[in-house]
Amino acid sequence: MIVDRLTEAIIAMQNPTCVGLDTALSYLPEELSGAKDARAAADAVLTFNRGIVDAVADIVPAVKIQIAYYEELGAEGLRAFRGTIDYARGKGLIVIADAKRNDIGATASRYASAFFGEAFPSDFLTVNAYLGTDGVLPFLGACTERDRGLFVLVKTSNPSSGELQDRVLADGRTVYECMGDMVAGWGAGTEGRYGYTRVGAVVGATYPEQAKTLRARLPHTFFLVPGYGAQGGDAEMLKSCFGAGGTGAIVNNSRGILCAYRKRGGTYAEAARAAALDMRSDLRSVLGEIHG
Amino acid sequence: MIVDRLTEAIIAMQNPTCVGLDTALSYLPEELSGAKDARAAADAVLTFNRGIVDAVADIVPAVKIQIAYYEELGAEGLRAFRGTIDYARGKGLIVIADAKRNDIGATASRYASAFFGEAFPSDFLTVNAYLGTDGVLPFLGACTERDRGLFVLVKTSNPSSGELQDRVLADGRTVYECMGDMVAGWGAGTEGRYGYTRVGAVVGATYPEQAKTLRARLPHTFFLVPGYGAQGGDAEMLKSCFGAGGTGAIVNNSRGILCAYRKRGGTYAEAARAAALDMRSDLRSVLGEIHG
Repeated sequence: MIVDRLTEAIIAMQNPTCVGLDTALSYLPEELSGAKDARAAADAVLTFNRGIVDAVADIVPAVKIQIAYYEELGAEGLRAFRGTIDYARGKGLIVIADAKRNDIGATASRYASAFFGEAFPSDFLTVNAYLGTDGVLPFLGACTERDRGLFVLVKTSNPSSGELQDRVLADGRTVYECMGDMVAGWGAGTEGRYGYTRVGAVVGATYPEQAKTLRARLPHTFFLVPGYGAQGGDAEMLKSCFGAGGTGAIVNNSRGILCAYRKRGGTYAEAARAAALDMRSDLRSVLGEIHG
Repeated sequence: MIVDRLTEAIIAMQNPTCVGLDTALSYLPEELSGAKDARAAADAVLTFNRGIVDAVADIVPAVKIQIAYYEELGAEGLRAFRGTIDYARGKGLIVIADAKRNDIGATASRYASAFFGEAFPSDFLTVNAYLGTDGVLPFLGACTERDRGLFVLVKTSNPSSGELQDRVLADGRTVYECMGDMVAGWGAGTEGRYGYTRVGAVVGATYPEQAKTLRARLPHTFFLVPGYGAQGGDAEMLKSCFGAGGTGAIVNNSRGILCAYRKRGGTYAEAARAAALDMRSDLRSVLGEIHG
């Protein structure tokens, strides 16, 4: 079961870190910049990503690939997106496609086919559930059939996330709690051996109070935690995202790893590895030993 | 201003209809089916779309291209998506990219670049605003700079849309009314000569009561109305989506036009044109003459 596989990789590496391949052209070092067209740019991005994957594959369990950065390069960019998925999975990494897809059922089933079928075969997909259950079930059906997983946006890491998500409903819950309860309902019955379901939640590192509330409310939901590093979240803030034994969450870092070479010097790959090891130390300083 | 251009095209054609190019491979007629790989499939989809565009370009003002159907074919599908955009715009149609994109600000700016820049240059983009203002502003900035527009999901057409969207907040508003008010705020100050702003709303034809509430609440918001035809909405139900003079809304129909040949016989292009003309008659029977 994919959430068990993720948990076991985290325990084996003692590292609940996910490297975010939000690879903007402007992040590339000099030797890879200067592409003259979309095809060359996409090739440069793919080369860079392979270097990052090679540098971290033995110390981090997963990568999260943010598709917006590839869509910006058009069809060629999507070719690099696919190439990155294949390369990372080939190196044993679990791949989270961060696409935040959402639509009515008939259309959601096409997205499910895109991200869990042949086009962009990923282990996890992020989804936005503003449309409710019938926009989520096609994804869940594909996950069950092919042993994949979802992360549904619950409480996002950005400054404005509270405008809708923190609103209080007439029944006393906040919108993010209501969404969290829906997520728990969609996942119910799919618990793996560590107690977590196929339907995870995106919970930002930047809102520790809300994360604490959600962790207590959703004991069987695995959290994907963005917002560490460049967005302002630190290890102490995101401690509350984890369950017993330090499982139940994985923390993403994109720019802090991809662009580490600018602060640290050395090659981008060496700097990315050093930054990922520092992040592991930082997380372990608050989590202690991770065990199932 | 793009919303004025859309309104003027609707008035000139007396037709507030948008043809949805949700082109599934299974919708293609025999002569275009049988592709052996993704490239051939994408070519067949593009050929079909060109036929539809040629058949309707003089009687409908806009097409809405649902990107999920193209993503399912991978990078080749995205090439067909781009080819469809170019062909439709080349024939004078206004192109709505239905991608429901959403993310934090830094990432939203990449999506804005993808759909309003060089990759997939569209006139309008649908977006999901669960993340709040900072996930919308990068899109709005690109719209202002390049004269494009947005449609934000407010009340969607699917059966489960009420699970979150119809919830009542402590302040007495529903979630969809709250989202509608945010949409009005983002659009404020961008009104064109017909009174509508750059930031439109997606309001499903299948919920006439909610549409009536939203029409009264959001007098300056242009509505994109899905759910007509295959999803169960009819002309009488969606009358309340329109403002004075029959402006302020455009109604999408996808399968009812793309697959019309199966019910009507004839070529798919002839049948699509006949179905689009029938839809125009249906809408005009409840709207009367459309004037600004």
